[in-house]
Amino acid sequence: MSERPLTLDPDRLLPRQGRAQALARALYDRVCDYPIVSPHGHTDPAWFALDTPFENATDLLVTPDHYVLRMFYSQGIPLSALGVAAAGESRDQVASPREAFRTFAANWHLFRATPSRMWLETALAQVFGVEVQPSANTADRIFDQINDCLAQPEFRPRALLDRFCVHFIATTEGALDPLIHHATLKADGWNDRVVTTFRPDDVLNPDLPGFEERIDELAELTREDTHSFAGYLNALRTRREFFRSFGATATDHGHPTAQTADLEPRECQRLLDAARAGTASLEETERFRAQMLTEMAGMSVEDGMTMQLHPGSFRNQNKALLERYGPDRGADIPVTAEFVRSLEPLLNRYGNSADFRFVLYTLDESTYARELAPLAGHWPCLRLGPPWWFHDSPNGMQRHRHETIETAGFYNTCGFNDDTRALLSIPARHDVARRMDARFLAEQVEEGRLDEADAFELIDDLTVNLACETFGIEPPALGI
Amino acid sequence: MSERPLTLDPDRLLPRQGRAQALARALYDRVCDYPIVSPHGHTDPAWFALDTPFENATDLLVTPDHYVLRMFYSQGIPLSALGVAAAGESRDQVASPREAFRTFAANWHLFRATPSRMWLETALAQVFGVEVQPSANTADRIFDQINDCLAQPEFRPRALLDRFCVHFIATTEGALDPLIHHATLKADGWNDRVVTTFRPDDVLNPDLPGFEERIDELAELTREDTHSFAGYLNALRTRREFFRSFGATATDHGHPTAQTADLEPRECQRLLDAARAGTASLEETERFRAQMLTEMAGMSVEDGMTMQLHPGSFRNQNKALLERYGPDRGADIPVTAEFVRSLEPLLNRYGNSADFRFVLYTLDESTYARELAPLAGHWPCLRLGPPWWFHDSPNGMQRHRHETIETAGFYNTCGFNDDTRALLSIPARHDVARRMDARFLAEQVEEGRLDEADAFELIDDLTVNLACETFGIEPPALGI
Amino acid sequence: MSERPLTLDPDRLLPRQGRAQALARALYDRVCDYPIVSPHGHTDPAWFALDTPFENATDLLVTPDHYVLRMFYSQGIPLSALGVAAAGESRDQVASPREAFRTFAANWHLFRATPSRMWLETALAQVFGVEVQPSANTADRIFDQINDCLAQPEFRPRALLDRFCVHFIATTEGALDPLIHHATLKADGWNDRVVTTFRPDDVLNPDLPGFEERIDELAELTREDTHSFAGYLNALRTRREFFRSFGATATDHGHPTAQTADLEPRECQRLLDAARAGTASLEETERFRAQMLTEMAGMSVEDGMTMQLHPGSFRNQNKALLERYGPDRGADIPVTAEFVRSLEPLLNRYGNSADFRFVLYTLDESTYARELAPLAGHWPCLRLGPPWWFHDSPNGMQRHRHETIETAGFYNTCGFNDDTRALLSIPARHDVARRMDARFLAEQVEEGRLDEADAFELIDDLTVNLACETFGIEPPALGI
Repeated sequence: MSERPLTLDPDRLLPRQGRAQALARALYDRVCDYPIVSPHGHTDPAWFALDTPFENATDLLVTPDHYVLRMFYSQGIPLSALGVAAAGESRDQVASPREAFRTFAANWHLFRATPSRMWLETALAQVFGVEVQPSANTADRIFDQINDCLAQPEFRPRALLDRFCVHFIATTEGALDPLIHHATLKADGWNDRVVTTFRPDDVLNPDLPGFEERIDELAELTREDTHSFAGYLNALRTRREFFRSFGATATDHGHPTAQTADLEPRECQRLLDAARAGTASLEETERFRAQMLTEMAGMSVEDGMTMQLHPGSFRNQNKALLERYGPDRGADIPVTAEFVRSLEPLLNRYGNSADFRFVLYTLDESTYARELAPLAGHWPCLRLGPPWWFHDSPNGMQRHRHETIETAGFYNTCGFNDDTRALLSIPARHDVARRMDARFLAEQVEEGRLDEADAFELIDDLTVNLACETFGIEPPALGI
Repeated sequence: MSERPLTLDPDRLLPRQGRAQALARALYDRVCDYPIVSPHGHTDPAWFALDTPFENATDLLVTPDHYVLRMFYSQGIPLSALGVAAAGESRDQVASPREAFRTFAANWHLFRATPSRMWLETALAQVFGVEVQPSANTADRIFDQINDCLAQPEFRPRALLDRFCVHFIATTEGALDPLIHHATLKADGWNDRVVTTFRPDDVLNPDLPGFEERIDELAELTREDTHSFAGYLNALRTRREFFRSFGATATDHGHPTAQTADLEPRECQRLLDAARAGTASLEETERFRAQMLTEMAGMSVEDGMTMQLHPGSFRNQNKALLERYGPDRGADIPVTAEFVRSLEPLLNRYGNSADFRFVLYTLDESTYARELAPLAGHWPCLRLGPPWWFHDSPNGMQRHRHETIETAGFYNTCGFNDDTRALLSIPARHDVARRMDARFLAEQVEEGRLDEADAFELIDDLTVNLACETFGIEPPALGI
Repeated sequence: MSERPLTLDPDRLLPRQGRAQALARALYDRVCDYPIVSPHGHTDPAWFALDTPFENATDLLVTPDHYVLRMFYSQGIPLSALGVAAAGESRDQVASPREAFRTFAANWHLFRATPSRMWLETALAQVFGVEVQPSANTADRIFDQINDCLAQPEFRPRALLDRFCVHFIATTEGALDPLIHHATLKADGWNDRVVTTFRPDDVLNPDLPGFEERIDELAELTREDTHSFAGYLNALRTRREFFRSFGATATDHGHPTAQTADLEPRECQRLLDAARAGTASLEETERFRAQMLTEMAGMSVEDGMTMQLHPGSFRNQNKALLERYGPDRGADIPVTAEFVRSLEPLLNRYGNSADFRFVLYTLDESTYARELAPLAGHWPCLRLGPPWWFHDSPNGMQRHRHETIETAGFYNTCGFNDDTRALLSIPARHDVARRMDARFLAEQVEEGRLDEADAFELIDDLTVNLACETFGIEPPALGI
């Protein structure tokens, strides 16, 4: 294969004909340099706290990105060839970073028409100035070019946040996390910019191994008696407060389903006892989690933290892979989701409260028009999250807007989330969202469904304002 | 916010490029002034029987429209601010019509890109000549302008039907309704134009409170012994006949699911006994409803009434709202629907009959291509209803056509229904449907999938003929 | 109705504006005359073995095509009017071929905008040179014109395969089939071109009547003791080998669901015993089929045959029709499908094997983005099949690409299958697929999501290479 230039079409994803073309361009131009508001994601706070340079292109772009790993794996390329060590393996038993990057580059064609390709191309071109497409021939050259960059101070994590115009970014930590990196960030005056999110799955979900130990640890950390349900709730209140002291404005919940419950105190105590003892049935475990979502909603009403729910991922379907390589290797597969009956107990308890923000995400797009848009279009507390994970893509965004806006309107949505652990993809992902929003709005105007003046207001709302409003973030100056 | 003009793009929703543009325009121009055939809806027959003027803009456009109420409610605006009184509240405890209209106008932006906005804009501009968009500044002016119109004779209900070129409109009444307004209409010679629809949910569904009393009332009205299943069926036959005497051509069924059954008479009697006694289990209640759908199909074979099924709405999810404000306030949410296994008993009993028309609607779009189009593309009795409720929108119509026509063809569909209680939205809704059909057909022709001559035949069929044929309506003269 | 010309738009289905127009045309021109690779279908091997002429237009185009039969039936046209005899009826009790063709032609409008119309038009125009559209007026003329053609040697089955440039075509036979026609084809040196596919449903699914007798017949054919589970498995191995000796490269499984299992040998034996004895419960029957899918996967790992799974068709919903006319008359309706939990046992047993190709099809499009693309984008064995049956249509193809490619990429798909028993539709179906792929790729390039050079590589892959690679077929020379 001959060497191919890597160029970014400046009009990528925008419409190409008629009135929509010029209007989409104008809408995009208005917001393309706006600061990034990233209220939900999984970057490593150590990067920003310690600000140590990234080591090499593979560790930055390949190994931590489960989108990339799964695509290679699906084509028979073992993780070892990508430099990923199994449990008990040392790093020198697998491909070196350079060898791994060669495998990555030689199989670049696998990403054709995927969002990973667009994110990676954008990062290669805009961050590192790469001008050729990855291939067997160009692998070493690109690898060296990136590594040369990474050695320079302007490629250190904090500098990258500046360069990417990141106004606000949230990481995600478990309920027991000591938040040492966020403490550093706070000491450095960065905790209005890099904050944590309270993700208590590991102390709410009795299915996760080590549940009882963690409940004990929760007791120790908070000096509450977590044997009593009331004490357990107070302990969670205390941890939420601890997270808020480092700037957290939101919680996140990764439950298998959206099931909620509104049970009597005695029943709650009984379920907690069974969960701790490891004697809870599958149904009791589900009911415990269901009750705890409602408790979390109640605490959000108390403390103002925005609540997020990400249900419906069937985690770690590939057992051999899990055993050898651990989680987050690309073997999490969506299953059907149900929201209407599931959320009924929680919504009837807290859903009419004006002090409660509850953001719903889904991996099951059949729920967009059927359940989520009608729910968000009725309940005061609800906001519809952006397209999540597999659906964070141009087509995914298109389906999301087309299937939700007519019923939910724009003002029951909450802007874009990148939800990523791939730092370099953040500006690229927000750029895709801004382009797709500009396109959607321009097409609405062209079709006579929206006024042009409304479109210009909306593009600001979709890019910045709705995210800030939903997640309680101080809005950036838009400098217009 | 400065004052913005309210203008309707004459080419709204039509394609903007290529051959499709001119062709869609020609198709739309052909049918845009055709009479309206509205075989399914929820307008109030009292309007047309009594022909009293509407009181004010709020009572006409805001308060009765649950699409509008739910959008405001979802953004934290209480129903009282919209002039809706709770149970036990008097009208002067809530916002006056003028105050409510101010709230409506000041929050006009919430409807951006929703079909409600398009319907309301069309009504404001075309019916009342409003030339500015609703806003805090323009609220009073628009309110007064509409009210001035409403005081004039040409804005009384019957005059509006003339003005909207309504050839036929069906309302919907419960099985026990005395149809006094339809009697007036009949006396006035209007009962070929405004007719009722037989909607017997309240005497078929034991879950609805007061079931036993209504079965007793059914007995009284019909002089049948509704304690026996045979007598109960005869009573229903009698009521169907009563409805037909006021022009009804169709029945409608709003069951929670599409479940049908074909049970032995002894089992039917047992279920009726349990339903009356209030001792039926959830499963028995569902089986009773299931059996009754099949009985209704059998009666349709006997009497020629077109049967309609609207399953899958989870009614009144918001219990506090239901308690305070009653039903139809925007808290009905769709759930998954299933048709294949559910309809099997009914279809195997009556589905091969050439004397039976059975129209299916859904709120679960995932059933369009998977279940409904294949079913309608096989069973002689079945016709596929238009996109319903949340899906009665430009995008909803697009998905409906794209996901059903290739399998069901056009001739297993039944034209458009507006299904609304918002009188003013009727011409606007039919206009949207005509535009979207013109667009769909023009795009098919442009893509070489349909002949142009076929498209011109089809636009007449989709606008008028299929509805008349399916619902047994005398077709209007199309005056071409 | 006046006589209308039948003309094929040379640019049908291709984009009509902008850069995509010229590019799609160039992509399509590149591949439009490529040989046809048809790795999955249901043509009758007797046609190619015996090479006797087809009798008349009705027997060729109407009677065997369940897409056509069901559409007429759905509009109240009895099968007898189409020349289809019921059980116990003789051919002269139903419409003659000429009469049936008249019915077909007079109701031609029913197919507007369906893929059947496009396939039939293409066959009429390109194979038989028909220049007028079917109608009551033209029926006899077209019928005679086709019959005149069929009497000529260049319209005999083998000549048609040459004319259609069929490089490879697979038929589908049950596990006990003696493959006499494939033996003839082998003797004639045609068994690298027309091959069989191993479809063992009738000896794997205890629900199908006569299961025990067939298991006995399997024992006789293979001289294995099929009373023991091990013997039963060996008998299946022997039959797979027999099929491979006639060129088969693949198996196919038409189970009601995608459920798989990985059970202990003792449990397998117990289920086999119950299945043979006819005492298995519904749940045990499902578990037996589930286990057998996993066994088939294991045998594919052993012998290299590509495994295909077609789940989720609810067969023969119309019982009266089944009784009178038998299966495959258009009364098979899709139901919801589930893949993630269902396939877990099989995938965890064999899914990481690089020697295993497993192709998944679905009739439930809601699984495309939610389940199938993520599964295919992770498991090394999986390939995503093309849109199946009701979804083998322009819109169906569009939805398939739009909802799968971003997550699965192109290289976890396997090209196009026509899956048809309608011989004349084969070139038309592949032509539609090539046009839709050219359009999809051109639009991706226009939107800046794909390089033009990539698009030209991909169109070859989608048209020929992926099918050959997935199904172990020697690729044709592409003669570029």
